[in-house]
Amino acid sequence: MNANREPMARFYSVIPAGGIGSRLWPLSRASAPKFLHDLTGSGQTLLQDTVERLSPIAGADRLLIVTGAAHESAVLEQVPDISAMNLILEPSPKDSTAAIALAAAILYSRDPEAIIGSFAADHVINDTESFLEVVREAVTVAATGKIVTIGIEPTEPSVGFGYIKTGERIENSPNAREVEKFVEKPDLKRAQKYVRSRKFLWNAGMFIAPAELLLSVLAETEPELHQQVLALAEAWDTDHQAKTFDEIWPKLKKIAIDYSVAEPAAEQGLVAVVPAEFGWHDVGDFAAIAELQANGDPDHLAVLGDVKVLSDKSSGILVSETGRLIALIGIEDVIVVDTPDALLVTTKEHAQRVKNLVESLKTTGHSDVL
Amino acid sequence: MNANREPMARFYSVIPAGGIGSRLWPLSRASAPKFLHDLTGSGQTLLQDTVERLSPIAGADRLLIVTGAAHESAVLEQVPDISAMNLILEPSPKDSTAAIALAAAILYSRDPEAIIGSFAADHVINDTESFLEVVREAVTVAATGKIVTIGIEPTEPSVGFGYIKTGERIENSPNAREVEKFVEKPDLKRAQKYVRSRKFLWNAGMFIAPAELLLSVLAETEPELHQQVLALAEAWDTDHQAKTFDEIWPKLKKIAIDYSVAEPAAEQGLVAVVPAEFGWHDVGDFAAIAELQANGDPDHLAVLGDVKVLSDKSSGILVSETGRLIALIGIEDVIVVDTPDALLVTTKEHAQRVKNLVESLKTTGHSDVL
Repeated sequence: MNANREPMARFYSVIPAGGIGSRLWPLSRASAPKFLHDLTGSGQTLLQDTVERLSPIAGADRLLIVTGAAHESAVLEQVPDISAMNLILEPSPKDSTAAIALAAAILYSRDPEAIIGSFAADHVINDTESFLEVVREAVTVAATGKIVTIGIEPTEPSVGFGYIKTGERIENSPNAREVEKFVEKPDLKRAQKYVRSRKFLWNAGMFIAPAELLLSVLAETEPELHQQVLALAEAWDTDHQAKTFDEIWPKLKKIAIDYSVAEPAAEQGLVAVVPAEFGWHDVGDFAAIAELQANGDPDHLAVLGDVKVLSDKSSGILVSETGRLIALIGIEDVIVVDTPDALLVTTKEHAQRVKNLVESLKTTGHSDVL
Repeated sequence: MNANREPMARFYSVIPAGGIGSRLWPLSRASAPKFLHDLTGSGQTLLQDTVERLSPIAGADRLLIVTGAAHESAVLEQVPDISAMNLILEPSPKDSTAAIALAAAILYSRDPEAIIGSFAADHVINDTESFLEVVREAVTVAATGKIVTIGIEPTEPSVGFGYIKTGERIENSPNAREVEKFVEKPDLKRAQKYVRSRKFLWNAGMFIAPAELLLSVLAETEPELHQQVLALAEAWDTDHQAKTFDEIWPKLKKIAIDYSVAEPAAEQGLVAVVPAEFGWHDVGDFAAIAELQANGDPDHLAVLGDVKVLSDKSSGILVSETGRLIALIGIEDVIVVDTPDALLVTTKEHAQRVKNLVESLKTTGHSDVL
């Protein structure tokens, strides 16, 4: 490898665009998952926000999107610049290792010095400049032979995220540290301890690594999956692509990249982290969206969608896809999601229970609205 | 007059079907007021319930409906038995005296011994047998030359109704009493005093009286209106009906029958009351409908309309005209009213404020949904 090549010149982004986001039903559906929606009122979808955020460091020719085959037309409509060879359509969901490792293998075959950064399609980041700064530092550290994750400085003892235990500072890098270990979502007591210690960061699932290194870790931990991914990458953009995918894809092991790559690599001292404070949100439920929009104002009523609203002493969030007039009177912390075939009314307190509701919709024969 | 004629053989009902019911927006609209809706889940509208309830004592040939000209086709659809000569269409709303006195004058011209009973089209009565029993007693008392009102035994110190102060018992009648006076809607303290005294009944706006007596009181209190009403009745069902209505109707004084007839007659000792306990509700707002449906169960979720509902620990009332799936999670005492062009979400506590909302819809240029 030509070690003299500027690290950012070796950089490519990968956007795994999967997951339905069932806590965002009835807005988010199997046919129109979370990343295809505007959940911030920015005027574009989370996927478009993600692509735009990365564009200064990885334009359409240096960006791969990995998504379900069912979302091909929606993704092409939202990201018209993307070329077919940069849009990986998964015949079926196979968890994050398959998606990211295949993208890494395809990029490795195009550029053996490729450094890839994997960023979920459905997260919100407030400060793009700060985000890009962090990614640049992560890419520089990755170029020294590390898998680099971005760790979010906790703003509260959340039990909804995994944590990253930081170790020694990394020389010649302004903020990066070694990763001692990844820890699973803690209970509240442990989360409080983590936050007090100032040694723990939230794991936002963002990885930056040389494609070659990522694949070599996978070769050790999951040799069969590694071989299958290489075979798929070799067939990519050839005339036997379809046949090879038909043959191999159904056999792929479903495993999260945390288990196949990040944690084993951390045990080998191969993982670094760049701490970040760019305002990161995974907008996992409507309460999170409401809080994001409220900007600290407890009386705020967030409105998403082109809708006429009459609100009398009401707060929370209102999402409309129907354009009907919506009147709210004296109802606090409410969540109203108005779609053509389903209406949800709940409160911020119960936002997480939407997921259970979706489960019961499955079992009660209402899968037409899922 | 032939005083030997059986009182019930002289009986006719009048159903004034007016009032939008703006506290029931967005279900109740100018174009589809309260009485045209099924607010009890009975499978028929309040107007149909009213007509059916009266049918054992006053069939279609002995029943007049007075409503706005705009509701002609809806009323004919819901009450197909009604003949044109028994359906009075008001060119514009002129309050209750015009409506009831005109009906009285028309019936008087057909049968000078007519005893008329006026019953609003949009009230709910639980026990029809008991209601008919009370009406029969009222008709018998009316035949002795009284205006008889039906007074509801208060179940709580309501500040939403006027009250009737009862006097001496009336001889030869099982329950009827003289009316000392009518009193306006009281404040809570006064309402509590009224209820404790056991001398006060709710004024439900139901009157039973010989048409001749009602008109003679009106002749004294509102001579001009009386003359106009007689002229309209004379023209009714003739070829100069339209011309006469065009001429006279716009000039009619707007005055409630309480002021033009009931209160002045009470001062003359001409009014009696039959106390009633047949479960009467004016279903003035969605909280009242919810309570009616709940039957005392505080965790009840009332559902009106053909709608798929998934409710997780929710109570209150849900009204749907759209057939969309509606999911409620952990939201208590909620009011959700789902119509094709407008959605209302509030709580039972704020049910009365819907009226203010309708006012502000008028002033903010949303009269398309009124």
